[in-house]
Amino acid sequence: KEEEEEEELRQRFMAPPVSGLRELRRRRRELRSRMELLIMETQGEVCRALAALDPGATFAVDTWERKEGGGGISCVLQDGEVFEKAGVNVSVVFGVLSEEAARQMRSRGKSLKAKDGKLPFCAMGVSSVVHPKNPHVPTMHFNYRYFEIEEADGTKQWWFGGGTDLTPTYLNEEDAVHFHKTLKEACDKHDLKLYPKYKKWCDDYFYIKHRDERRGIGGIFFDDVDSPSKEEVFQFVKSCAKAVVPCYVPIVKKHCHDSFTPEEKLWQQLRRGRYVEFNLVYDRGTKFGLLTPGSRIESILMSLPLTARWEYMHTPPESSKEAEILEVLRNPKDWVH
Amino acid sequence: KEEEEEEELRQRFMAPPVSGLRELRRRRRELRSRMELLIMETQGEVCRALAALDPGATFAVDTWERKEGGGGISCVLQDGEVFEKAGVNVSVVFGVLSEEAARQMRSRGKSLKAKDGKLPFCAMGVSSVVHPKNPHVPTMHFNYRYFEIEEADGTKQWWFGGGTDLTPTYLNEEDAVHFHKTLKEACDKHDLKLYPKYKKWCDDYFYIKHRDERRGIGGIFFDDVDSPSKEEVFQFVKSCAKAVVPCYVPIVKKHCHDSFTPEEKLWQQLRRGRYVEFNLVYDRGTKFGLLTPGSRIESILMSLPLTARWEYMHTPPESSKEAEILEVLRNPKDWVH
Repeated sequence: KEEEEEEELRQRFMAPPVSGLRELRRRRRELRSRMELLIMETQGEVCRALAALDPGATFAVDTWERKEGGGGISCVLQDGEVFEKAGVNVSVVFGVLSEEAARQMRSRGKSLKAKDGKLPFCAMGVSSVVHPKNPHVPTMHFNYRYFEIEEADGTKQWWFGGGTDLTPTYLNEEDAVHFHKTLKEACDKHDLKLYPKYKKWCDDYFYIKHRDERRGIGGIFFDDVDSPSKEEVFQFVKSCAKAVVPCYVPIVKKHCHDSFTPEEKLWQQLRRGRYVEFNLVYDRGTKFGLLTPGSRIESILMSLPLTARWEYMHTPPESSKEAEILEVLRNPKDWVH
Repeated sequence: KEEEEEEELRQRFMAPPVSGLRELRRRRRELRSRMELLIMETQGEVCRALAALDPGATFAVDTWERKEGGGGISCVLQDGEVFEKAGVNVSVVFGVLSEEAARQMRSRGKSLKAKDGKLPFCAMGVSSVVHPKNPHVPTMHFNYRYFEIEEADGTKQWWFGGGTDLTPTYLNEEDAVHFHKTLKEACDKHDLKLYPKYKKWCDDYFYIKHRDERRGIGGIFFDDVDSPSKEEVFQFVKSCAKAVVPCYVPIVKKHCHDSFTPEEKLWQQLRRGRYVEFNLVYDRGTKFGLLTPGSRIESILMSLPLTARWEYMHTPPESSKEAEILEVLRNPKDWVH
């Protein structure tokens, strides 16, 4: 029976988990193991759902090891019929951190007491960016992550972070409502305060200051969450991860055969440029990754679109569809009441 | 006679200077005025030389004012036959800085003594990026700038910065030698130590750490230079500015009609992606601009290419022309002995 279960799990995953299936089963009660299984399952679910939408294309699967401890699995579909670039990464890394590096990992910058200047840590997460070809299909990003740090006295600090957000080239209100409603439902099962709080956090986080625009129409975002309890936050993160496919796949299905003009494709490329600006200038995860020795650059920069464009002084005409989305990016709306 | 001279100057410039021609003539002995005339002339010279290479295209000229003091002139040619995007900016800004902001402006981070926490300053410069269409024509960048800050006791701190550098898609040794030799000649007129010192500074500055690559094959770069004397540094900067056209124009002429394959164009687009990575993640000027309230974003981000591309895990085959340029970007060469 145990072997059957392992076989089943293997089929649901894109590759063997970093910690090994046997090991995960052995310590199945620990949250670390349950989170690793969740991110592996999420990777499998999302990759299978996307691949089903783009029949000619397949995900290339790369497993990589980190010299200092741990590794990851990167799944990337490139230049498909429906998707320009879709990546779903899992990473599970561990080792020791300096007090300074540990402090930087928490957005609240809490200090931690190290033993001989070293803090054993474990960080794991699933992260994904999907850039479709058709300008009527929005770009989607999600990321769910878990951290553990052991202090000198043996106590473990832990926290979760994550979010799911949408970046359309053109505004489709119905899609925006569907996306936010699906996220709200996932949040509401746990606490009615979560969606409004994390929706606002998302609008604030994905702000491109030098453009006075958000990257997209938002979704949810949270970081450094360690209450009410490990189990409750995990259950919430699980609901969010399970909501990714129902949030996004119906939108892709609905629009992936929409016709579009060369002008619409061009506007998409300009918006891709803004995506690059956010990710390289502001995104905490990207910046942290680029500065961390031993991090896998190709997995971090997988979030960048296949192609992007920058035109000097491009301003869409008033009352155009291009101006409509800009208005929403400048003044975020409430999509669900 | 004075009016004739003004008329002549006006024809050499792309727009009236920020400080006004009369004012510049009135205080013509001051270095600030001579530098402003030099950057205006350089803008005119480079724009005319580039426009002559791309007969169908013209430079759009925008003059802009800065609320806090000063302004600029942005000249941009977009989507020409020869150039994908070519921009030449002049800016002349002044006002007051906080001690902290002033300290950040100097790469050596010298502290300055302010009067009531305020430091009157003046910053001016010409900066340019030229992205050609043909992958056999390299991208070129140059920037020459001058700063003045007045301390509480009335003493003025001043310094110059600048450089000219080349970013080819494919290596052409003859072009690399011509480019570096022309820069070396400009430097050698002033001090034989300058070229080797500023060539190395350039290789160090344009380093994309997360890729372990330089942005291009270098040139010269210097910052925070305030010796031997204001006059001598100005004369050196003038020689460098005058060298831009002879450095670059012969290379464009030589290759702008070269035939190229779709694969070569694709490699160019991937290299453009690296250009974006350097400018958004590392470039001091870009980062400083993006963080400065009231700066003109369109002029700062004019340096980004019209189009760029990111492919997951793209690695050129060994001994290919693509691998050849990567080798030089990883291990900078001495082009002039």
